[in-house]
Amino acid sequence: MANFDLIRRLAKDGGGKIVLLVLDGLGGLPLEIDGPTELEAATTPNLDRLAREGSNGLNIPIARGIEPGSGPSHLALFGYDPLTYEVGRGALEAAGIGIAVVPGDVAARGNFATVDENGVITDRRAGRISTEKGAEAVASLKDITLPGVELTVEEVKEHRFALRLRGEGLDPGLADTDPLSVGLAPLPATPVVDNQAARHTASLVDQFVEQARERLKAHYPANMLTLRGFAGDPALPKFHEVYKLKAACVAVYPMYKGVSRLVGMDVIETDAHDTALDEFNYVAEHWEQYDFFFVHIKYTDSRGEDGNFDAKAAVIEEVDAALPALVDLQPDVIVVTGDHSTPARMKQHSFHPVPTLIWAPATAMPDPVTGFGERQCMAGALGQFPATDLMPMALGHAGRLARYGA
Amino acid sequence: MANFDLIRRLAKDGGGKIVLLVLDGLGGLPLEIDGPTELEAATTPNLDRLAREGSNGLNIPIARGIEPGSGPSHLALFGYDPLTYEVGRGALEAAGIGIAVVPGDVAARGNFATVDENGVITDRRAGRISTEKGAEAVASLKDITLPGVELTVEEVKEHRFALRLRGEGLDPGLADTDPLSVGLAPLPATPVVDNQAARHTASLVDQFVEQARERLKAHYPANMLTLRGFAGDPALPKFHEVYKLKAACVAVYPMYKGVSRLVGMDVIETDAHDTALDEFNYVAEHWEQYDFFFVHIKYTDSRGEDGNFDAKAAVIEEVDAALPALVDLQPDVIVVTGDHSTPARMKQHSFHPVPTLIWAPATAMPDPVTGFGERQCMAGALGQFPATDLMPMALGHAGRLARYGA
Repeated sequence: MANFDLIRRLAKDGGGKIVLLVLDGLGGLPLEIDGPTELEAATTPNLDRLAREGSNGLNIPIARGIEPGSGPSHLALFGYDPLTYEVGRGALEAAGIGIAVVPGDVAARGNFATVDENGVITDRRAGRISTEKGAEAVASLKDITLPGVELTVEEVKEHRFALRLRGEGLDPGLADTDPLSVGLAPLPATPVVDNQAARHTASLVDQFVEQARERLKAHYPANMLTLRGFAGDPALPKFHEVYKLKAACVAVYPMYKGVSRLVGMDVIETDAHDTALDEFNYVAEHWEQYDFFFVHIKYTDSRGEDGNFDAKAAVIEEVDAALPALVDLQPDVIVVTGDHSTPARMKQHSFHPVPTLIWAPATAMPDPVTGFGERQCMAGALGQFPATDLMPMALGHAGRLARYGA
Repeated sequence: MANFDLIRRLAKDGGGKIVLLVLDGLGGLPLEIDGPTELEAATTPNLDRLAREGSNGLNIPIARGIEPGSGPSHLALFGYDPLTYEVGRGALEAAGIGIAVVPGDVAARGNFATVDENGVITDRRAGRISTEKGAEAVASLKDITLPGVELTVEEVKEHRFALRLRGEGLDPGLADTDPLSVGLAPLPATPVVDNQAARHTASLVDQFVEQARERLKAHYPANMLTLRGFAGDPALPKFHEVYKLKAACVAVYPMYKGVSRLVGMDVIETDAHDTALDEFNYVAEHWEQYDFFFVHIKYTDSRGEDGNFDAKAAVIEEVDAALPALVDLQPDVIVVTGDHSTPARMKQHSFHPVPTLIWAPATAMPDPVTGFGERQCMAGALGQFPATDLMPMALGHAGRLARYGA
């Protein structure tokens, strides 16, 4: 945290424009000892050029050995110590679809589920109903009323929705109602903190669930719901106050929009089917309005989780092919990195440090790296560093930090 | 410490088996600028194979520039911040020979010494008497009685023994009675904290020394004793509760057994003359019973302290030759490292970072390192890292840590 306080104190108005391009789960592993990683296997002339001209290294998202979740790893890339700023998933989900969570609110992620005649869950995701069906089920819940609170329910995607309670005397200290297993009934809302506000909130949540149960009978297989990740406003410091940056997010998935909103970025409207080039074109369209763009590419992670090495490499190649659309905007600083590794070989997020390049024509120290990849980055100018140091480096390269001391 | 708390929170039951092989004082220095270090000079085909297939780097035991003692450097390898968990040498020595130190006890290291007719020390180690002679001298002290406390005295090795006082109202806050120089008399026990318990303990220690002086007259040259490292129970968190690991220690020297016991490892019985291969065979014998084995090789350090470059390299070669006995057990993770450097050129522990490899077939990132040695490790995937990060990395590779955040 000392570092974060220091940056807040030194950040100044004016300076260069920064693009932070995050390929989710970028880092990988070779399939054989002498083989390439996904990034090394991909043909990436544009990324290789940025790596050759810039400084390279590996970021450590949370700490050595720790497998990062996407929320904390993005906070780290944004410069927020993820062990200090713990953000509940409910707040991320709500923020992701534009539901503001302000102090006093309680948000949660909802899942539609299927229950049998005894109320026992037979499918925790209601057969992964379509987003249209999910929206219909959500619509049936919108006029539920609860004493003394304002209720907001919105569809997120497929079987997932977001819930927000707004009113006096609420507390998000509740356990999930999802029993995490079929063959069990949803759990009642249960406080995990010992105070009246949490007990009151639990009672309201139970009333909501009881009313929802009746209405959802007509929406089989979405005939029940569970709630997870109860969370209040994480009260994160905002980009403009910490960094003096006017910042925008270009992301396709709600969660990444959510975490961007929580740090005070504007979220540029995107479409679920947007390609990397589409995302870069949004940046071009809004180029004059912002100092900082966070651009998020989801599918590197998705293909890694699928265990599809070649498809992950192909996503990287797609991003590389579109990259001139970003570079042609002549940003002062381009950072290319990932929020964590997702090696196709492991089919999951992993703890491995993540390849990172900082391209900044005016200030970057070129290093021996000639192409963007894990092994080359080991010999780069940035070394291995905590992900939270990335924003200070980007700001430094952009000339946005005052000197420390005379 | 945040890191240690984090690991405790994320550690989960189940996962792969880990072997931590520590060659004491492994790191070295070349005798000439262009020459090899001890490790680089040694012929080590098996270590080289693990290095080529695994990830390599250098661990910083305590902090840059700091020469580590063996106790704190092992605590660091075990993941315990050695600046937070300071363990008195008396507690290590007692634990090493199986004398439990529980809250309220006071333990100390004893040295037999030789004094002249005026009570002045002429040899601080009593001519390094044999362990048999030491045991005879210890036997003469066993029936000393002190008011209100239970006394335990046990031979450790040669002129060294361990002392434990157990009773009400004791405090280990006493200065050493060893004047650290010949030509001086042993010092009286002197409290370094201002409380009644420490004064009471000092008085008991002085009574013990006075009675011992009479009895030791018959054991010349062991005709006196000094006491050092007064310590209470360090109350270290235990491996099974922090890491959820069932852990065993294979070590020949008492101190390493001691520090292992203090962190909750089982200590496998060994013989003072065991070779590296003998030690690896103990691991094989107990393979099914444990998740984690700490294997300690002493003689790399001893030969380094002797200033014998070739003999230190020969110890490394002996370990390498025996290594297949470990690898054939198919651990999921093998870590090979040292607790500190002991360059033969310096004849002492040194502050230099220590070569480290993590071999983990399912998850390790191969790096450009083709052989295990100081200079090659500088280009490895692990970079330079605090020794306390080694356990989290080993646990991560073994799949023993839950994801941090969603």
